[in-house]
Amino acid sequence: MKAAVLNNTNQPLAIENITFNELQEGQVLVEIAYSGICHSQLMEVRGKRGEDKWLPHLLGHEATGFVRKVGNGVTKVKEGDKVVLGWIKGEGLNAPCASYDNNGKTINSGQVTTFNEFSIVSENRVTKLEEGIPLDVAVLFGCAIPTGSGIVINEIQAKENTTIAIFGLGGIGLSALMATKLYNFNKVIAIDIEENKLQLAKEFGATHTINSSKEDVNERLKELTLNEGVDYSVEATGLAKIIEIAFKNVKNNGGLCVFASHPQNGDLIKIDPFDLICGKQIKGSWGGACIPDRDLPKFYKLYKEGKLPLEKLLEKRYTLDEINEALDDLENRKVTRPLIQINPALEK
Amino acid sequence: MKAAVLNNTNQPLAIENITFNELQEGQVLVEIAYSGICHSQLMEVRGKRGEDKWLPHLLGHEATGFVRKVGNGVTKVKEGDKVVLGWIKGEGLNAPCASYDNNGKTINSGQVTTFNEFSIVSENRVTKLEEGIPLDVAVLFGCAIPTGSGIVINEIQAKENTTIAIFGLGGIGLSALMATKLYNFNKVIAIDIEENKLQLAKEFGATHTINSSKEDVNERLKELTLNEGVDYSVEATGLAKIIEIAFKNVKNNGGLCVFASHPQNGDLIKIDPFDLICGKQIKGSWGGACIPDRDLPKFYKLYKEGKLPLEKLLEKRYTLDEINEALDDLENRKVTRPLIQINPALEK
Repeated sequence: MKAAVLNNTNQPLAIENITFNELQEGQVLVEIAYSGICHSQLMEVRGKRGEDKWLPHLLGHEATGFVRKVGNGVTKVKEGDKVVLGWIKGEGLNAPCASYDNNGKTINSGQVTTFNEFSIVSENRVTKLEEGIPLDVAVLFGCAIPTGSGIVINEIQAKENTTIAIFGLGGIGLSALMATKLYNFNKVIAIDIEENKLQLAKEFGATHTINSSKEDVNERLKELTLNEGVDYSVEATGLAKIIEIAFKNVKNNGGLCVFASHPQNGDLIKIDPFDLICGKQIKGSWGGACIPDRDLPKFYKLYKEGKLPLEKLLEKRYTLDEINEALDDLENRKVTRPLIQINPALEK
Repeated sequence: MKAAVLNNTNQPLAIENITFNELQEGQVLVEIAYSGICHSQLMEVRGKRGEDKWLPHLLGHEATGFVRKVGNGVTKVKEGDKVVLGWIKGEGLNAPCASYDNNGKTINSGQVTTFNEFSIVSENRVTKLEEGIPLDVAVLFGCAIPTGSGIVINEIQAKENTTIAIFGLGGIGLSALMATKLYNFNKVIAIDIEENKLQLAKEFGATHTINSSKEDVNERLKELTLNEGVDYSVEATGLAKIIEIAFKNVKNNGGLCVFASHPQNGDLIKIDPFDLICGKQIKGSWGGACIPDRDLPKFYKLYKEGKLPLEKLLEKRYTLDEINEALDDLENRKVTRPLIQINPALEK
């Protein structure tokens, strides 16, 4: 089968023909239809996660496909099931990581990988997909939606008539923005450096936008909140310095900044301890505090009710052979969430 | 009346004879018996809080005394009441700051000051003291006890059989330590650079001590927690870099660091965002989240039951004339919490 392999960081992924072994206990074999690419994979490929001890390895952590076989002990899914693959741990067995082979070269993988035609995945990284949701948009249920929307739904328990600011309108930021529609926010402020993202943000529910390449974010947020700061900020740019700004701009006595960013290895955030003493709060999000088995059905329902316009996040499609182009486009901000069509014919 | 006045930062306080005006609405005139000195005043006097716009001014924020007169609208206390003065806002009117006079020179003050024989205090900075508690130990109810013990009682809602580390054994740190006795901690680890403080810590309930001038704190904490990190850390050294260590050493998935330090103006704390993503939590404490009117009676009760050995915190006494010596001793770590005997005869 065909797979994109990271042989060395800071090099393009290589498309190789590799083989896989028999399933072990708790493992699930999935034939993949579509995969998304998250900023995290870009960081891995570009060597920004520090030393990579697992080279060569597969990667990718949000996808959809069909179960083709299950290992011993697997009860959550069965052959033929339509599933979402994601990195956030759910119910089921925590199986060992699979390894693959290319003519004697061992290729490592994590408990889920998605830039490959078939993937051996741990049971707890697989969730059943309901009927009525196309496999392409459903890749977003693997990472972007649970993380972005999860931050709003699970981690920010928003009070009525409050103000929220969302920094960075990639897959996570736009997913957070979508989820704000479920609440009665007074102001929803979307911040990015690109005008087209800010236009899109309006369709996703932003009441105000700030173009931070042209405007002073701190000043604009002061204006919009009468110097008080926002009640909540969501940071999804991947940059430590933006986490600092997102934190600084929440109000005293209970303002909460939640960031989804996992910045470059070694980047620290600098904060004024007095801001914490004054009751500003900061929290890092681990997958929007989602438990996929509990939370994905809620998101499925919202999608079916037309409340999550996921199609708008998938503006560009690539084949598996074009995956390096997709990574470049993500890096150069030409695309919000690249969609890799591994085997779209599976849906038919 | 006699008062210690800060005319310029980085100079000794001047003992001056000053006068006060008629009480305004919500103000309370208190004759002071004893005052404590908190590290905060040392920072103010030494100019470490940034530009001081209020010079010349009075200072001090924990004391005991007797109410001599109340302004219009005051209902919480009456003439003759024995009271605790503290900086943490409680119930009652929020009165304007008083100002004083020395032969035409206006001397500013905050809503509470305590290095003076009489003080005009806002009603919401005064709490009645119960009978049976000596006025000297009771000064600690103004700041050290609510902050230090409050962190443990109000902000750390400790689970059973958990581990807590306390960094810095000044008035706040030792007050936090005392409060750990009320819970069933598995390990209580006290950390300081002085052996005598660590000895004292054992009397206050520490099960383990670390002398950070001789031992590697990170390594010792790893040993004591089998590499997991502590469940809770309390930081009370006043140093940004120790907040960083206290945070780093809490465990993933819910470990909580609460700091009481208000470090030197401009000092930032640097933290790894991934630690927050992994579920380590950090919080600055504003007076141990205490509401004096609600919480001081709890502390009074604990003291009367012998559970707060406050006497041990007051190892050295000074007159008001000796206040600069007291500040020097605090700075040079010769004393934990200096006690200023403004008018001890009041107690008789």
